[in-house]
Amino acid sequence: MGPHPAVADVRRAVRLALDDLEPGDLVLAACSGGADSLALAAALAFVAPRAGLRGGLLTVDHGLQSGSDRRAAEVARLPLGLDPAEVLTVRVGTAGGPENAARDARYAALSEAAARLGAAAVLLGHTRDDQAETVLLRLARGSGTRSLAGMPARSGVYRRPLLGLGRATTVAACAALGLVPWEDPHNRDDRYTRVRVRRRLLPALEEELGPGVAEALALTALLCRDDADALDEWAGRACARAVVREPGDRGTAAAVGAEREAAGTAERAAGGGPRGAERVALAVPELEGLPAAVRRRVLRRAAIAAGAPPGTLSAGHILQVDRLVTHWRGQRAVEVPGGVGAVRRCGTLIFVAGPSRGGGGVPESSPLP
Amino acid sequence: MGPHPAVADVRRAVRLALDDLEPGDLVLAACSGGADSLALAAALAFVAPRAGLRGGLLTVDHGLQSGSDRRAAEVARLPLGLDPAEVLTVRVGTAGGPENAARDARYAALSEAAARLGAAAVLLGHTRDDQAETVLLRLARGSGTRSLAGMPARSGVYRRPLLGLGRATTVAACAALGLVPWEDPHNRDDRYTRVRVRRRLLPALEEELGPGVAEALALTALLCRDDADALDEWAGRACARAVVREPGDRGTAAAVGAEREAAGTAERAAGGGPRGAERVALAVPELEGLPAAVRRRVLRRAAIAAGAPPGTLSAGHILQVDRLVTHWRGQRAVEVPGGVGAVRRCGTLIFVAGPSRGGGGVPESSPLP
Repeated sequence: MGPHPAVADVRRAVRLALDDLEPGDLVLAACSGGADSLALAAALAFVAPRAGLRGGLLTVDHGLQSGSDRRAAEVARLPLGLDPAEVLTVRVGTAGGPENAARDARYAALSEAAARLGAAAVLLGHTRDDQAETVLLRLARGSGTRSLAGMPARSGVYRRPLLGLGRATTVAACAALGLVPWEDPHNRDDRYTRVRVRRRLLPALEEELGPGVAEALALTALLCRDDADALDEWAGRACARAVVREPGDRGTAAAVGAEREAAGTAERAAGGGPRGAERVALAVPELEGLPAAVRRRVLRRAAIAAGAPPGTLSAGHILQVDRLVTHWRGQRAVEVPGGVGAVRRCGTLIFVAGPSRGGGGVPESSPLP
Repeated sequence: MGPHPAVADVRRAVRLALDDLEPGDLVLAACSGGADSLALAAALAFVAPRAGLRGGLLTVDHGLQSGSDRRAAEVARLPLGLDPAEVLTVRVGTAGGPENAARDARYAALSEAAARLGAAAVLLGHTRDDQAETVLLRLARGSGTRSLAGMPARSGVYRRPLLGLGRATTVAACAALGLVPWEDPHNRDDRYTRVRVRRRLLPALEEELGPGVAEALALTALLCRDDADALDEWAGRACARAVVREPGDRGTAAAVGAEREAAGTAERAAGGGPRGAERVALAVPELEGLPAAVRRRVLRRAAIAAGAPPGTLSAGHILQVDRLVTHWRGQRAVEVPGGVGAVRRCGTLIFVAGPSRGGGGVPESSPLP
């Protein structure tokens, strides 16, 4: 008799996610003790030795609830057969709100542990339901294809094998294996937006639009991710062609053409850190020949290369800059976050950072045709 | 004293939407008598003479409610100063459900009248709220960027000047002008999915995620439209390069490379009509060099050129065909709607329509590296 179908589904998903690793590689499951990551850890314990890999476990003590240290120790002691099994104790700050602060602290600790232990991959237990929640949350921000792409199946050392499975499958897998998941009281706290999305909005969507909404949102995320990747590729090439080399240019074309952004945590982190402020000049005729979607991505890259923080640079800002290309009537400079200004002069669109920006508001004397 | 701000907003939107027309051109407002299209028609009556244009009105009697003929006649007699002002009486069929059937009949009548009267444009009263509803409805289908793009601001003879304005603005504009909109009882009938989205889901989204959800969804639509346009452009070029010319080829490359689909009504119409069934062959090495988003669009075009109806060809079908390129292990043919099969042979991916498809299930004898 084979395993319970839910157990088989989770194991198959984990096996597929690891099929490019080398024998002896260490794979770590990030496990909170909740149903998703518990089913994930149990599947890794089963799959890893059979695939010639080593399986370990990391659990994070955020120190936000009394007894969290004891609970984390219990997760690390679960007799799953994963070794090493470590508790990572973090201090959660306040930057960006409680949810963001906890996530940033968690990922920093996981990345540090992965590097220290020499892990080839860290597995995260996000399911199709988490993906659907992410897409709905981002949709409400109106921030486009990249944002709707949701969480990637792979990003650096992280992998999310369960994005194709529903939460019901992980709950069923735990039950079939006799594992008792921990229910985080935060998951029932309606002060968190994500909790309200999960407990009220997704059920309302299913009620009004019919079943399968979570699957549809997850498929939307998959399609949007591929669309965003293809457009980024095009924008990278277009950027390299549009950049005007100026005297004293320190390789701006390469810097702007390169992918300087990453989704999610990395982008937020980059938004807060110091960035080199540069002067970036783009040839307007090159920009005019591009489809709007590609042109706006080029403008976004240029603004970021000039010092605009990706996290606060919105689609609205870029649409305003874009009017310097598409609706040119001798406008003044357009200001974007980070003290960066975009100004058009003599067929060139120039992005300059704050202090060095003298006369950024002076319009080109005669509009180009 | 100037006009009420809502009246000014609607007039400005209509003026901007018509700024490319020639003096003397005829512009028709499609008007149901509801607040959106009534404000639109009133704005056209004001704007058209001042812009050197002629403004007219069309109203459709769907014959679905008793007294609909009388109401349509009242709309056509409104003293707005629009001439011509015609009632178009249609027969609503049953194909695709009551909402789709009514829409198809309405657009057919509007297009016929526009052609007969020699109109340069037909204005539709869809607002930002309609756009948000459309995006939510399509999101639940999981059908990707093109679908999330919602309704276009322009499509053929049709223009939607009010996509940037909320429904509250058209209601306020009617009130300020002393116009009493007609309330369609269908708009309160919860048997219609769109009505449930409007009256339950969007308010629930605003409640849980904060205000501005409709604006965010409309901005999402705008960004997705541009993304989809750019990717279609790329796919068109990639398609032309990938098509393998075979003996007796009747210009397949051009047919596949051309944009054979349109969004919304046109696509549905095409899905129902007869299409030429062709044999389409694509070079696998060309496909392998493309980003996933572009490759899948090329496969979609090829399937449609071979006879698959666009309306029923889903992302899931194309993902299956795509595995013949990305996960080649000598699989059998993949079936897609319209009796079209995709099979890989000797480094070529071949789409063939039903009857002529002999041996479509026979796999390539030796998988390519």
